[in-house]
Amino acid sequence: MKTIAFVGLGAMGRPMARNLIKARFTVQGYDVNPAGLADLKAAGGAPSGSAKAAFAGASVIVLMVVNATQAEEVLFSNDALEAAPAEAIICLMATCPPKQVQAIAERVAITGRRFVDSPVSGGVVGATAGSLTIMVAAPKDLFEAARPMLEAMGNRVLHVGDKPGQGATVKTVNQLLCGVHIVVAAEALALAEKVGVDTKSMLEILVGTSAESWMLKDRGPRMLEAEPEVTSAVDIFVKDLGIVLEAGRETKAALPMTALAYQLFNSTSGRGEGMADDSQVIRAYRALNGVTQ
Amino acid sequence: MKTIAFVGLGAMGRPMARNLIKARFTVQGYDVNPAGLADLKAAGGAPSGSAKAAFAGASVIVLMVVNATQAEEVLFSNDALEAAPAEAIICLMATCPPKQVQAIAERVAITGRRFVDSPVSGGVVGATAGSLTIMVAAPKDLFEAARPMLEAMGNRVLHVGDKPGQGATVKTVNQLLCGVHIVVAAEALALAEKVGVDTKSMLEILVGTSAESWMLKDRGPRMLEAEPEVTSAVDIFVKDLGIVLEAGRETKAALPMTALAYQLFNSTSGRGEGMADDSQVIRAYRALNGVTQ
Repeated sequence: MKTIAFVGLGAMGRPMARNLIKARFTVQGYDVNPAGLADLKAAGGAPSGSAKAAFAGASVIVLMVVNATQAEEVLFSNDALEAAPAEAIICLMATCPPKQVQAIAERVAITGRRFVDSPVSGGVVGATAGSLTIMVAAPKDLFEAARPMLEAMGNRVLHVGDKPGQGATVKTVNQLLCGVHIVVAAEALALAEKVGVDTKSMLEILVGTSAESWMLKDRGPRMLEAEPEVTSAVDIFVKDLGIVLEAGRETKAALPMTALAYQLFNSTSGRGEGMADDSQVIRAYRALNGVTQ
Repeated sequence: MKTIAFVGLGAMGRPMARNLIKARFTVQGYDVNPAGLADLKAAGGAPSGSAKAAFAGASVIVLMVVNATQAEEVLFSNDALEAAPAEAIICLMATCPPKQVQAIAERVAITGRRFVDSPVSGGVVGATAGSLTIMVAAPKDLFEAARPMLEAMGNRVLHVGDKPGQGATVKTVNQLLCGVHIVVAAEALALAEKVGVDTKSMLEILVGTSAESWMLKDRGPRMLEAEPEVTSAVDIFVKDLGIVLEAGRETKAALPMTALAYQLFNSTSGRGEGMADDSQVIRAYRALNGVTQ
């Protein structure tokens, strides 16, 4: 397992590919955006002219594309996957709805190749540091085969199930919690702003109590900045909570809190702030409350 | 500051009064429920026949009643407060809406007595262990005067502001976060149940990630039990999120997530499960999803 085809060299994919190269894997990469290819080349990887070209000779194919539709196109349009060795392992690491992951896994299985459902959490920070959490669903022996490669990108490589879709489900539940926790932190701080108490000292008081969440601690301080550094954009949660809601539609599960949190991210994006740091969903509350910071 | 009048000997008040007695304060207590008085007597306190009788000779009056209306009645009906020494300090420790705390503080000030806005968090567990967080708003010298007594009940006695209502505001924001975090944990686990993944191992995976909250860690495992021990009841959050929404009405702040979380607690109470552990708000999701555990 030395040659890896890496498709999707965006904000997450670039540092992940760099960490694979650092761990002495040969990385053949592809992205429609030439900037991603240039970054890969600078890091010591081999840019390819197409996904199909990248697949040639690869023992593992990593997909870090935007969504399930892209993953499907990359693998199957122009019979791309046929260019990969018969024993190639396909690792789908992008965040996708569980049912779509299952469908892709079935199409991969028809070609005789093996599929690893392996979404990540940890954001660009985790991707850069090689400290991603990777939620892997695959038969145990396949999990063990993929593990050394995955450990080059993450420090928590977890076997969460045997069947494709189970990794995506864990990731879906993870994103549900993360997204809603950001919005409720915004609601809480926006109430504090409206009442007129000192939000900075309030945050200090709340961290370490039963009111705490990882997101309150991480995003809370950035909510109080006017133009915080973007570590993950509002539009990422418009996409990811969209996936959570899709999982809810597919399984007919009621997700009222998620649906509402989605509206607040989506309206923030709609006001032209989709590229702002996701902490800035607090602006939806400021808009509702008629408060200027 | 040796004699304390303690009014409101319920699930929280009883262990708090016991901790004051252990710290060698003389406690004169009152509650309409004779069981509370019997508990106080057994702990070495002095039961009184009325709030007014308890106030006589007390340097501090602690109110751990159900709500602001009760606090007002206890202090002012039948001119009860007039029985307290002129230099008495009134500590309102119950969870009340900020504006009502301000109104009570003003009425207390008219009598020349001093008021300490000092709500708590930590539940029955914290009240019993003497490990409550106490959010104190009062002028600094008054805070220092009340501190030794408050430290007999809590291990995090925080000065959060100078003005009455600021303690209640911090507590309100605290309850907003706690209540919504419980509901979103329920939504996440209910989705996992509906999808059919192993919820117990999913919980283990999520704790320690960016999806974590204090409530997910504490209430999550209890959500997966059929009849968990009651550490705090559903109806407590019906009341407390009601107070949060009241604070929103008073200040005209939009609280959509809180409003929705309230509906899920309230419907659980409406199905006759108000006395169940608050983790059982997950039953609202099971009802919606037609899932029996």
